[in-house]
Amino acid sequence: MKIAVLGTGAVGKTIGSKLIQLGHEVKMGSRNAGGEKALTWLKEAGSNASEGTFEDAAAFAEILFNCTAGVGSLEALQLAGAQHLANKILVDVSNPLDFSNGMPPSLSVCNTDSLGEQIQATFPELKVVKTLNTMWCGLMVNPGLINGGDHQVFVAGNDGEAKKSVSTNILNAFGWKPETILDLGDITKARGTEMYLPLWLSIYGATSNGAFNIKIVR
Amino acid sequence: MKIAVLGTGAVGKTIGSKLIQLGHEVKMGSRNAGGEKALTWLKEAGSNASEGTFEDAAAFAEILFNCTAGVGSLEALQLAGAQHLANKILVDVSNPLDFSNGMPPSLSVCNTDSLGEQIQATFPELKVVKTLNTMWCGLMVNPGLINGGDHQVFVAGNDGEAKKSVSTNILNAFGWKPETILDLGDITKARGTEMYLPLWLSIYGATSNGAFNIKIVR
Repeated sequence: MKIAVLGTGAVGKTIGSKLIQLGHEVKMGSRNAGGEKALTWLKEAGSNASEGTFEDAAAFAEILFNCTAGVGSLEALQLAGAQHLANKILVDVSNPLDFSNGMPPSLSVCNTDSLGEQIQATFPELKVVKTLNTMWCGLMVNPGLINGGDHQVFVAGNDGEAKKSVSTNILNAFGWKPETILDLGDITKARGTEMYLPLWLSIYGATSNGAFNIKIVR
Repeated sequence: MKIAVLGTGAVGKTIGSKLIQLGHEVKMGSRNAGGEKALTWLKEAGSNASEGTFEDAAAFAEILFNCTAGVGSLEALQLAGAQHLANKILVDVSNPLDFSNGMPPSLSVCNTDSLGEQIQATFPELKVVKTLNTMWCGLMVNPGLINGGDHQVFVAGNDGEAKKSVSTNILNAFGWKPETILDLGDITKARGTEMYLPLWLSIYGATSNGAFNIKIVR
C-alpha cells in the first residue's frame, strides 16, 4: 500500500522503516520537503521510500500515520489538506505532550477532550484510529522485543471497519497478536490512552528503561 | 496499630475489614457519626472496630486511610482537623473522579496538579503516601486474587520513611510482594496514577470485568 508517515522524528522514522520492510511504499511528510532528517531516513530506507511536504505525503497515500508532535498535529494535518484526508484512515500514534514549561511535560488537552477527538472533530471525513501511543516506538513495531510479545496495545476510533483494517493490516503485521489488541471503543476512548502518558513517564523515570509496556492481568 | 479509615463506601469498608483481620484497631470516620453504612460495617467487623466523625477517627489514629470520594477529600480532612493529622501518615487511595456531568466521570484536578498534591499542600505536616488508587478495592487488599499476585502497585510521596513504612506494614501485609511495589517518587507522581483512571475505566468498560490490574513487562 501507499502510506504517508507525517513527522520525521524517531517515531516517524521507526514506523516508516518498518512499513518499508513490510513491502509498502512510504512517503514521509514534513513541514518543508527536503529536510535533513527526512533525507537521512531516505538513504537508509531504500527505493520504496520517498519524502515531501505534509501535503505531498497525504496526496500520495491510501492510509496515513500521524507521527508528528502532538502539539503540532492539527496544524500538520491542516497543511496536509482536508481534501487529501477524506475517507482515508489516519493511524494516530501521537500524544499531546507540552514541553513548553519544562519537564515533566503536561498535556495540551486532556480530561474532557483529547487530541484524537480534536483531530476527528476537525476532519470529520477522516477515519481516525488511535493506537500505539502508549509505548516507546521500538515496541510499536516490534512487540516481541519484550515478554514474548504478550502485552497490550489499545485501539480507539469511531469507524469499526477502520479499526479492523488497522488491527489486521498494521498491528498484526507489526507483530501484535490478535489477543493482545484491545478495542476500547469510540474515539473518546483516546482520552484514557493519552492520559496514561504521565504514568508512563513516571514509570520510565523510576526504572530508567523505556522498553516496557503494560499487560492486563485478571 | 490504631488506624482511621475515612469514608464508609465500598473502599473504606473493604480496607477497614482487612485491617481488622490483620489485628489492627480501626475507627471508621464519616461526616456524621452513627450513619447506616458505618453501623452495618461495625456489625460485620467485630470488637476491634468502632466508628465516629472524621475528627473522632483522626484523633484516635496513629495512621489514616483516605477512602473518601476524591471530590470531597479535602473537606473531609478539614473536618478531621489539621491538629489530628500532623506528623501522621495518610495512605491516600482516593481518586478525584467527578460524576457531576454523568458517565464517564472526568477528573476534578489533573495534568499540572493532583489530589494527592493538593492534600499534601493543604496539610504540610501530614505524610501523604499515594497508593492503591489504580485498581478495584477487592484487589487492593487481596492481590493474590489474580495472576498469583504478580501485578503492580504504585507508591508516591515526599517522605521516604513513610513510603517504606506503608510498603512494609500495609502493602506487604495486604499481600503485595516487595517486587510488585514500584516507588514512582515524590507526591507529584500522584498525577500519573490519578490520570490513569480514564484508561482503567475504558478497560473496565471494554471487558466488563473490574478484577484486573496492570503488570509492567520488560
